[in-house]
This record gives sequence, structure tokens and C-alpha cells, in this order.
Amino acid sequence: MADGDGRAALTLAEDVWRAAGEGETFDAAMLQEIVQRRAPVYDKAADGHYNLISALHKSVRGSDPDAALYYLCRMLDAGEDPLYLARRIIRMAVEDIGLADPQALVQANAARDAYQMLGSPEGELAIAQAVVYVASAPKSNALYTAYKAATRAAKESGSLLPPKHILNAPTKLMKSEGYGDGYRYDHDEPDAFSGQNYFPEKLGRQSFYRPVERGFERDLAKRMDFWARLRRERGED
Amino acid sequence: MADGDGRAALTLAEDVWRAAGEGETFDAAMLQEIVQRRAPVYDKAADGHYNLISALHKSVRGSDPDAALYYLCRMLDAGEDPLYLARRIIRMAVEDIGLADPQALVQANAARDAYQMLGSPEGELAIAQAVVYVASAPKSNALYTAYKAATRAAKESGSLLPPKHILNAPTKLMKSEGYGDGYRYDHDEPDAFSGQNYFPEKLGRQSFYRPVERGFERDLAKRMDFWARLRRERGED
Amino acid sequence: MADGDGRAALTLAEDVWRAAGEGETFDAAMLQEIVQRRAPVYDKAADGHYNLISALHKSVRGSDPDAALYYLCRMLDAGEDPLYLARRIIRMAVEDIGLADPQALVQANAARDAYQMLGSPEGELAIAQAVVYVASAPKSNALYTAYKAATRAAKESGSLLPPKHILNAPTKLMKSEGYGDGYRYDHDEPDAFSGQNYFPEKLGRQSFYRPVERGFERDLAKRMDFWARLRRERGED
Amino acid sequence: MADGDGRAALTLAEDVWRAAGEGETFDAAMLQEIVQRRAPVYDKAADGHYNLISALHKSVRGSDPDAALYYLCRMLDAGEDPLYLARRIIRMAVEDIGLADPQALVQANAARDAYQMLGSPEGELAIAQAVVYVASAPKSNALYTAYKAATRAAKESGSLLPPKHILNAPTKLMKSEGYGDGYRYDHDEPDAFSGQNYFPEKLGRQSFYRPVERGFERDLAKRMDFWARLRRERGED
Repeated sequence: MADGDGRAALTLAEDVWRAAGEGETFDAAMLQEIVQRRAPVYDKAADGHYNLISALHKSVRGSDPDAALYYLCRMLDAGEDPLYLARRIIRMAVEDIGLADPQALVQANAARDAYQMLGSPEGELAIAQAVVYVASAPKSNALYTAYKAATRAAKESGSLLPPKHILNAPTKLMKSEGYGDGYRYDHDEPDAFSGQNYFPEKLGRQSFYRPVERGFERDLAKRMDFWARLRRERGED
Repeated sequence: MADGDGRAALTLAEDVWRAAGEGETFDAAMLQEIVQRRAPVYDKAADGHYNLISALHKSVRGSDPDAALYYLCRMLDAGEDPLYLARRIIRMAVEDIGLADPQALVQANAARDAYQMLGSPEGELAIAQAVVYVASAPKSNALYTAYKAATRAAKESGSLLPPKHILNAPTKLMKSEGYGDGYRYDHDEPDAFSGQNYFPEKLGRQSFYRPVERGFERDLAKRMDFWARLRRERGED
Repeated sequence: MADGDGRAALTLAEDVWRAAGEGETFDAAMLQEIVQRRAPVYDKAADGHYNLISALHKSVRGSDPDAALYYLCRMLDAGEDPLYLARRIIRMAVEDIGLADPQALVQANAARDAYQMLGSPEGELAIAQAVVYVASAPKSNALYTAYKAATRAAKESGSLLPPKHILNAPTKLMKSEGYGDGYRYDHDEPDAFSGQNYFPEKLGRQSFYRPVERGFERDLAKRMDFWARLRRERGED
Repeated sequence: MADGDGRAALTLAEDVWRAAGEGETFDAAMLQEIVQRRAPVYDKAADGHYNLISALHKSVRGSDPDAALYYLCRMLDAGEDPLYLARRIIRMAVEDIGLADPQALVQANAARDAYQMLGSPEGELAIAQAVVYVASAPKSNALYTAYKAATRAAKESGSLLPPKHILNAPTKLMKSEGYGDGYRYDHDEPDAFSGQNYFPEKLGRQSFYRPVERGFERDLAKRMDFWARLRRERGED
């Protein structure tokens, strides 16, 4: 239960000692109850903190602004640093909303700025506003999933050169090797889109990012479909 | 009248002394008149300041951009620090507009940034722009009300554990106790929405945040209705 | 021509001396030509600077992005500090666009941020983007005009108390005097709008801010009309 | 291949030495293969860095969010400073998107802010979000092209005075010379547009900025057409 933290272990031992009557022995069920009673007491070094921040994050992800506000207030009431909470909300905005609503990140940043201007106790309301914003925003983990997949691909293919037509050719040897040859500047192509391949040749085209059918990602999905169609029509896929 | 401020008490006494003719005595009505005459003279330590900032805040809340501009200019003319005013407007944006127009906070922050870049006397116009923006924005205290209600609930139920399915389970004991069991990752559910309960079991679902039928909160109300319907359909409410 | 600046006077004298042939005398026309030739040579302490920044500002106000870009580049080419230009554009965004497009201020601030991240020579393009944005934005001086009128009214009526119903009443004497009596909290009124008067009684309602029929001010005009109608219907005007 | 960098030359020599078996000799093809194998190994002082950042930029310009994410992750995996990447994305937002989507700059700045709040490893996801945003945003180099053309014009005509009607006239001589005469304050003209000429008389009107038919520049094109029409109707062109 102390999770490697000596201070938490001592606090737990104390809890058990206090709970014990004279000459009493505990069975597992009794022990658990004592320990569980302790958990909600907020302690940065112990479970209370992690349970509450996890509950806040999951309430936001679960699109429940009421539960999210509740856990925000639990943490503020327990003395949590409001800037820590502002930071966590910024992370939630990218992890669980992402491009389904790019304004979520702007709003989370704005709450942090506002808190820094107002300080406590007034600035907390700006953080609460960001919590309600992200909790009621359309949800997507398309960016998060894509980032993890792209990271994996990058690690596995970290020695592959980009295709020659997009390589820099600062030296004569490179130029004679064809570096940069055939690059098409997209702005000069129809629809400002060349459709050329940018992936290393041995890897080939990958599809990491798959926007969902919610919020702004609906627009992104349409754009990506449009570009995929252009590629097909021009024989670039 | 001095409201516990020694310096203001001395100033008041001086005002009365100066108003007094040789050997004159005052009745309550005369005393009040002297004191009232003093009030509008702007004095940070006395009522003038509080009356004007309160008048500015109430004019904004009352959707009267003309009166709001008037009190802003009264305070600037009296030598008030423009950054103090910028800060108050940030607070008004969250307290009286909130999610009825999330851009109000962005605009209030932008005015503060602009003032910091331009300084006086040019930067004041950016603050005036924010004042007109918030005064003519759609109004809502839904966030403010929700935050107060959630704070109350948090204080009253500060020892309750989040429900087991959203608890962290970093230790074996916790895992064997069912911590984290049954958690459903919303992004993998239909509509990226599980509808599961996030409140402590003893507390049950609460409704703190009730968006009004104005501005952006109209959209939020629709989303919350949609999620409530999904919960009902899936038997999660 | 030196406009009180000794250094500029010396430079001018030097220019005239250099322009003079052996034993030559000048008439007014010749002198003017020499002096005019010098003017465009950029000199922070002399006219060049003021002529160019004025030309940039007037091109923006005149909705001419090409001329605005031209003068921006003239100043950058002459070695002007890009952050000075970023600051001027922030001022233009509030003075000549204001609430006809509140995003103009956000974009001007964003350009300044971007320049600070990128530095020269890359960051100048972000400033150029802000210049084109403000030059092609809908124009309004409604805020600027309102701010000037409100400042005048504030100076002329600087001793008037706000109406009693919006005064703070922190003391018993004030409360017994009726301070704060009859204040209606707008969020509890129909349409979150009480329509009560916020101006000092002796001053009465003023109309400083008159949004134009362009851009976002069109929406603001509609809202103000709506509130004016509510006041009339409720007998509050 | 070392591109003037002694350290890279030594590393290359070492690579070749290591690749060599006892008494072996290389032909050009073998040498190239060794050298190419080395290139992808990320080295700030050598080609790897430039090839990858160039590939990232070209993938963004080419509207390929998957390839852009891939190269972002390659660079992060190789230990690149995330703030350097945030800065490059800000540049891409202005160079390749510009006013086709002014929110791209806001999003790029927001990602930088978020990274600075979150630090590694969480903040990288905010940068990934900005990469996907810019890669899938509508593209335009209209601003970039206009800025280059305006810079050229500014350099070539750096001694021309703005037209007299927009010159400052701080001195009597200037006023008697007609500086500032005939200036029309646009806000007092119909449609807040005077249509007067802002270019130096010898240069005449220039057309640097030509918005494309994509995203927000479609709106800008309409506005510019509207103003051009007003100029024609009023005989100002």
C-alpha cells in the first residue's frame, strides 16, 4: 500500500496502531477497512492524490463535467496547487480531445494564464471553466493513438533515409547522387498539392492518423479524403 | 466609514475638521453630506475605489457597455493601475460570462498582453476593448454556480473514495480488491462515451453544471442532453 | 526640419554642404530638393521614421495590404526593430479594427509571440502576416471614439457617485443610507438582464459605443438593440 | 559529405575505417553505401538533422500528416530539443499556411506554451497536435510570396517618400509644402474606405498579396475585390 514510500508506510503503520484496541488482532478484512478509510485523506505522497487526479482525468474523458468539477474541487479543497491542476488539464486537452476541438488547448492555456494573473482564490474559477470546457468537448484519441504508432514506426525504422527527392543536397556528391531531384514545390501544383510520397522508400506510406467523426476532426477527415482522392486521380498513391 | 482602515479614518477626520467652520457643531445630516462628498474622490484605501470597481463589475454584468466604459475611464482618470483593471476584467469574463462565450476569457487575456506590450497611454484602449467585449457578451453564471455547489459537495464528502472502477491499482493488494476493475476506456466505446458513473458510490450522480440557453452554452446543453440520452438508452443512469 | 534634434540638424547641414558646389548659392527650391532627398534616408531621430510608420498605419487603416506590406518592408530594410513594428500593429488592431474583428488583436499578439520565438530573419514573416491580417480586416473606430467620449465624460463628472443601488455597503451607516438597496442580480432576471440604470443619477444614461455595420460589430449592434428593446418593454429606459 | 564540419569528417572517416575489412579496398559504390548507412544516424552537426527537419517541413507543406508525424517522432526519438521543433512548426504555420488559416499560428504558439508547461515526455503530444494541425490545414504561400516581392520593391525604392497626403507635417515648412494635405480619414468615408493611394507617387500602386482560393484567404479575396470595386466606382484606381 505504501508503494515504496517510507513516509506513507509509517503513516499506514500509525493508522493501524491507532485503530487497534488493547491486545487486539486483525484479520485481512479488518486491515483492509482501516487502510481504505485512510486512502481518501489527501496526501500528496500517497494514494489520495493519485486516486483523485485519476478520477478527474477519467471524468473529463468520460464527458462528465459534474464529476470533473467535483474532483477538481476535492483536490483544491485538499490544498492541491492550482497550477498543477491547470497543467493536467492542458494534458487532457491534447490526450482526450486533440483535434476534435483544437480550441480546448487554447482554453486550457488561457485558464493557466488567468490563474497566474488572478492568483488564489479567484483564479480557481478559470481552471474550473477549463475543466467544464474539456469535459463537455467532443472526444478523440486519434492524435494520441497516431503519435504512439508513429513513435513505434520511428524507433523501428530509425536508420532509413527520407526519399531522395526531399533530401537536402548541400554538396556536389549529394547532388550527383540525385538528392533533391524531382522535388515538387506543392504551392506550384494544382490545389497546392503534389501528392508525392514523403516516407522512406523501404517503409512506404503509413496511415497513423485517423480522425474520428466528431467535431473539427470531421473537417479534417474530409480534407484527408480529398487529398487521398487527388493522389489516386494523379496516380500518386 | 473607514472600514477598519486607520489611514482612511484619519483622512475622514481631516475632511470633517476642514469642513467645520469656527466653533461649528454638526448634526447627522451635515456629517453625512461631508462624508458623501468625500467618497467620490478616488482613494485606493477608501470607498471611492470600491464603489467604482463595483460599479464597473455591475455594469459589465448588466450588459451595459456604455456604463462599463464610463467607470473604466473614471478609474483610469483617477490614476488606477491599468493592470489591476485588466485583472478584474479577466475575473468578470469567468464569473459572469463563463462558457456562454469562452472567447471572453481569451479576449480579456489578450487585452492584458496588449497592455503589457504597449504600456500607457496607448494600452488602455486594449483594456477598453475587453470591457466592451465582456459587457456585450452573452451572460451566464452557470459555471460560477456549479463551482460553488461542487465546492460545497467536495467539503461535505471529502473522505469518500472514487468508485472502484476508476481507482488506480498500483499494488497487488489493491488489484485483488478490485481497484480499476471494470473501467471502460471511453474512446473504445460507441460515440467515445461509456456513460459509466464517476461519482463516489455513496454520493451518487450530481448535477452541478446547468448551461443556460445563451451563446456557446446552448451547444453545451445539447451535448449534455445527448450524453444523458445515451446513458438512459444504455441503462447507465 | 530637424524638429528640435541637434543631431538631425548637423546631418542636414552636412547634406547641404555636400550638395553645394564650389562658391554656389541656393534658392529655396534648391534647398528643398536637397532636404527632401535626405528625408527618405531612414533615421530614427528624424522624419524618415515618422513618415514611414505613419504611412504603414494609414495603409492599414485604408485597407491596403499591399501598401502596408510595402512600408513594413521599407522599415525592416532600414533596420527598424521588428518588435517595435509588432507593437504598432497591436495598437492598430485596437484603434482601427477594434470589435469589428476581435481576432485582429489575437493575431497581432500571436505575431509578436512568434517573432519572439523565431527571431530575425524568420520571425519577420509572422509580423507581415499580422500586417496583412489587420489591413484586410473590417474597419471600425467605434471603440476608439467611445473611449474618447467616455474619458471626457469621466473627467467632467469625476465627483459623481454611482447610483445607490450599485454602491457597496460595507458599513451600517451606508446600509441605513440605502447603499445597495434595490440592486438586482442580472443572472436572476429574465434573459439574465435587469435593464437597471448604472450611470450616476445626475449624469443619466449615456451612449458612447455605437458599433458599425461591419464584421463582429454587426452582432454586437443586434445584441445592444435587443437589450434596448427589453429596457423599453420593462419601462427601464 | 562533411559539409565543412571537421567533426563530421572525422566521424565519416571512422565509419569508413570500421567498415573496412583487413587490407580491403573500396570502390565508389561501396563507399556510398557506407556513407548512406551513416547518414540516418542522427547527428546535429551533420546531415541527419537537416534531412529530417527538411523532410518534416516538406511533409507538412505536402499536406501529409502521417509523414509529418513520422519525421517528428524520428527527430524526438533521436533526442532533438522539442522546443526547436515547436519553433520550426511556428515558421511552417506562417510560411506554408499563412492567412489560408490564421488559427494555424495560434495553434502552433499554443503547442509551444503547452510544451513549456508540461515538459517532457508529456508535452511532446502538444507539439504532435500542432504538426497534424498544420499538415492538414489549407495551404497558401501568398503571404510568403508577397513578403518577398514587397521586400524587393522596398530595397529598390528605398529613397521614395510616401505621397504627400499621408506625410506627417510637424514643421511649418512641411505644412507649407503641402505635407498631410488632402488626407482622408477612412473611418469618416462611406464603407470606412477612402480608396486613396498610399504608395509613393513614382512607384504607383503595386499588387504583392494575392490570396488563394482556399480557407480564410477566400474571404480575404472577396474583401479585396470589394475594395477594388469601390476604388473603380469612385475613380480612385
